[in-house]
Amino acid sequence: MQKPSNPQGTRDFGPDIMQKRDFILGIIKNIFIKYGFEPLETPALEKLSMLTGKYGDEGDKLLYKIRSNREITHEVDDDKAQVIRENFPNQWIPGVSKLGLRYDLTVPFARYVVQHRNEITFPFRRYQIQPVWRADRPQKGRFREFTQCDADCIGSNSLIHEADLVQIYNEVFIQLGLPNAILKINHRKFLEAMVDELKLDFPVTKFTSTLDKLDKIGKDGVIQELLNLGVTQEMCNQLFQMITNTTITHDSLDQLSTAFNNNVLALTAIDDLRSILQYTEAIQFVIKIELDLSLARGLDYYTGCIFEAMIPNSGIGSVSGGGRYDNLTGIFGLNDVSGVGISFGVDRIFEILESQKLWPITHSSNPSILFCHFDKDTQIYAVKVANQFREKGFRVLVYPDQKKINKQFDFANAKRFKYAIIVGKEEMETNMLSIKNLMTGKQEKRSIEESLIFFDREKI
Amino acid sequence: MQKPSNPQGTRDFGPDIMQKRDFILGIIKNIFIKYGFEPLETPALEKLSMLTGKYGDEGDKLLYKIRSNREITHEVDDDKAQVIRENFPNQWIPGVSKLGLRYDLTVPFARYVVQHRNEITFPFRRYQIQPVWRADRPQKGRFREFTQCDADCIGSNSLIHEADLVQIYNEVFIQLGLPNAILKINHRKFLEAMVDELKLDFPVTKFTSTLDKLDKIGKDGVIQELLNLGVTQEMCNQLFQMITNTTITHDSLDQLSTAFNNNVLALTAIDDLRSILQYTEAIQFVIKIELDLSLARGLDYYTGCIFEAMIPNSGIGSVSGGGRYDNLTGIFGLNDVSGVGISFGVDRIFEILESQKLWPITHSSNPSILFCHFDKDTQIYAVKVANQFREKGFRVLVYPDQKKINKQFDFANAKRFKYAIIVGKEEMETNMLSIKNLMTGKQEKRSIEESLIFFDREKI
Repeated sequence: MQKPSNPQGTRDFGPDIMQKRDFILGIIKNIFIKYGFEPLETPALEKLSMLTGKYGDEGDKLLYKIRSNREITHEVDDDKAQVIRENFPNQWIPGVSKLGLRYDLTVPFARYVVQHRNEITFPFRRYQIQPVWRADRPQKGRFREFTQCDADCIGSNSLIHEADLVQIYNEVFIQLGLPNAILKINHRKFLEAMVDELKLDFPVTKFTSTLDKLDKIGKDGVIQELLNLGVTQEMCNQLFQMITNTTITHDSLDQLSTAFNNNVLALTAIDDLRSILQYTEAIQFVIKIELDLSLARGLDYYTGCIFEAMIPNSGIGSVSGGGRYDNLTGIFGLNDVSGVGISFGVDRIFEILESQKLWPITHSSNPSILFCHFDKDTQIYAVKVANQFREKGFRVLVYPDQKKINKQFDFANAKRFKYAIIVGKEEMETNMLSIKNLMTGKQEKRSIEESLIFFDREKI
Repeated sequence: MQKPSNPQGTRDFGPDIMQKRDFILGIIKNIFIKYGFEPLETPALEKLSMLTGKYGDEGDKLLYKIRSNREITHEVDDDKAQVIRENFPNQWIPGVSKLGLRYDLTVPFARYVVQHRNEITFPFRRYQIQPVWRADRPQKGRFREFTQCDADCIGSNSLIHEADLVQIYNEVFIQLGLPNAILKINHRKFLEAMVDELKLDFPVTKFTSTLDKLDKIGKDGVIQELLNLGVTQEMCNQLFQMITNTTITHDSLDQLSTAFNNNVLALTAIDDLRSILQYTEAIQFVIKIELDLSLARGLDYYTGCIFEAMIPNSGIGSVSGGGRYDNLTGIFGLNDVSGVGISFGVDRIFEILESQKLWPITHSSNPSILFCHFDKDTQIYAVKVANQFREKGFRVLVYPDQKKINKQFDFANAKRFKYAIIVGKEEMETNMLSIKNLMTGKQEKRSIEESLIFFDREKI
C-alpha cells in the first residue's frame, strides 16, 4: 500500500490554515467590493493556444499542459501511432496538447474581456481570486499551485482608478494588522525620461533591468553595470540625482520637474501623480507611500504608474504589485483598451502574519460550544437544546458518540471549543444547563433561556 | 488573430452569475459551519497514483492527466526518445504521467485523512467546496470543470451524523427557496435483506443496479429484467411488497419489519432509521422526507444510510446524494474508519433556480450608488464624499471619466445601480447632494449627513 501524499509544490489547507487564509482573503475581497469591483471566475482549463506566447519563453516552459485520453486518438496518424505503440507499450501516444492550466489571472481576464466585450459595460472593475499553476521547481515560499488575488479596472484612462487602488492598499494593510507597510510607486515615463535625458542608446528595458537590481547590488553595483554598458560616470551621477525615494507631495513633485530638466516625459508622469494626490487629498494615509524611481517590475508590460507593496523587516520581498497597462487586450485583438490593476500575494502575506504572530484572536470559525452527555437519552435531549442554539445562529456540536465525559472534554480541548455544556439527567429534569468555560475551568448552571442570553452577550 | 474562447465544457462566471452562485454556496457553507463542519481545501493537482483505480475503469478514462515539460525528459530512454523525435518533430516525447486533476472531493479527503491522521482529532467534520475535472463529453448540464460541495463526518458510527445531515438538507432547501424538495432515504441493509429474503444467488450490486432503474423503466421493466436473471414471478411479487415509498415514522417502520419477515438485516436498517427519528423528533421538517427502498446510488460504496435529494417537476434528476461508507480510507491503508457524507450539485441547483426564476431580489453585490459629476473639480469633491460613504460600509463608485451626465446615467442603468448621486458646483457650495432613485426617476436634495441616514435606512 503506497503512502498517501500530495504532490511536491502543492499544499493541503486544513481547518486552521483555511481560517487564517479566509481572514486574509475576506479582508481583501470585501475592500474590493466596497470600491465597486465585481467578481469574476474563469476556468482552470484554458485552451493552450490562449496561453502560449503570453508569458515569454520561460513562462511557456512553466505551463502545465493537459491531455485527456479522449483527445489523443484524434491527433495521430495511424501509421505513426503504430511506431509509438511498439516502442512504448501501455503509454500514451504523443499528440498536440490542446489544454493548459491557468498560469495567472491577467491573461484569462483579457480573454474574458475580449470574448464578452459586447456584453460588458465599460469601465469594468473586476476582482478575481483563484489558484494558478506553474510547473516551477518547488522551493521555500514558491509553489506549483498558489492563489492569486487580483483587482483590475479596464476601459478608462482616469487616474481615479490609481487613486482608488492606493486607498485600497491603505485599507487592506490596516485591516490585516500591517500598518507599517510601504507602498512604492513609480511611473514608466520617469524611466523613459531617464533614458531620454541621459541620451542612452540602448532599449529602456535593458536600462531598467539593471536599475531594478538597486535593492540587491546597491548603488555602486548598478553604476558598475551601467559603466560596462558604456554609460559615462558623469551620466551615472546625473542619473542618481534623479533617482530619489521621497514621499509624494506637490513640493517633491516640483523638485522632480527640476531634477528632470522639465523633460516632457517626466512631466507626464508628474501630472499623473498630481492627479492621484488630488483624488486622495482628504485621506489620512496610515501606510507609508513613497516614490521609488528605481522600481520597474517587468517594464514591457506597464505603461503608466507602477506599484509595489512590501512589509519592512519581514524578510520577504514584495507582497503586492501592479500598474497601468495600455494594451492588455491587444494580445487577443482588441486594441486601445487601457487598464490598471494590482495583485496581492496571499501566500506571502500569510507567511508574514504567521511568522510575526499577527493573527487576530477572533479569526476562528470553529464551533464554539460542545454539548456533552452521559447516555443516549441525554444525548437526544442535548440535540434538541443544540437546535435551539443553532436557531439563534450559534455554531454548536453535540458530541456524537457515547463515550466517557473526560473523552468528550479531551475532544473539546483538542478542537479548541470555548465552552462545554454538560447535559445529565438532573439538567434534563430541571431544564438547566451546566456550562463549563474551557479556558478558565469555571462551571455554572443556567436555564436554557439565560444561557442563550449569556452566550449572545459573550459574542461566541 | 485567433478568436478568444474558453474550452468546451468549461465556463466563465461573470459578475451576475458569480453573485447567483455565491448565493447558493453561501447558504450551504454557512449551514455546514453552523453544524460544526470545518473547512478543508486540497490541491487541484494530485499524484496520479492517488487517483487511478479509485473510480472504476470508466473513471480512469475520464481523469485529466498532466505533464510539465520538465518531467518528460526524465522518463524516457535516450534511444527510445530518438524514435519519437524522428516521427514526431516538435512534439512531446511520451512518458508516464505523474499528475492528474482532482476528479472528486472524496478521494482527496480520504488521502488527507490518512496522511494527517496523527494531527486530526476524530470525529472530524469537514466541508469542502472546490472545482473538479472530468474529461467527459460535454453536453447540456454536464461540464468538464464543475464545483462540488461536500460535507463529511468521519471517525464515528453514531447516527447523530445522519440526523444532522437530514436537518442540513431541510435548512438548505428552505433557505434556497426550494421547500418542496424531497429527500429520499434508503439503507444498504434493506437491499441486502431483499437479496437475503428472496434467496437470490447473484451479487447484491447486480440486483440493485436493476432496481435502481425503477424510475426509468418502471415496475414492469424491472420485473422483466429480474425474470431474465432467473428470479421467479412469485419472488418479484414478494419483492414489490417490500418496496414501499413511505414517510418514515415508528409505525411505518413497524410495518416494514413485518414486510421483511423480521429479517435481521432489515432490522439493523430499521434500528438506524429509528435513531434518526429520535434525534430529530423535535424538528418540524418542511421538506418531504421519504423512505425509497429502490434507491441504491452506486451501492458498492455505501454501507449504511443512502440519501438522494430532488426537486419535483424540475426536469433534473437528483441535486444531492450521499450516504454512509464504512471503509473510505481503506483505499489508502487505514481501515475501520466509518464516515457519512453528502454532496450538493451546485450547477443543478443553479439551473433550477434560474429556470424557475427563484432568485431572491437581494442577491446583488453590485455597488449600489454611483456618484456623477460635471468636471474634475466636482469629481474630486465626489471622491471625498464617496469615501465618507465607504467608511459607513456602503458600496459606492465614482464615475471615473469626464463624460456627459447622460453617459454616466447610461452606465448606472446598465450596471443596475439603485441610486445616482449628482454632484455639481451648487451641491459643492451648499454641502448638499442630489439623489436620484434610478428605479423611480425621483430626484431630491439632502445634506450629506441626511443622505447617510437615508441610505442606512434604505438598507442599500
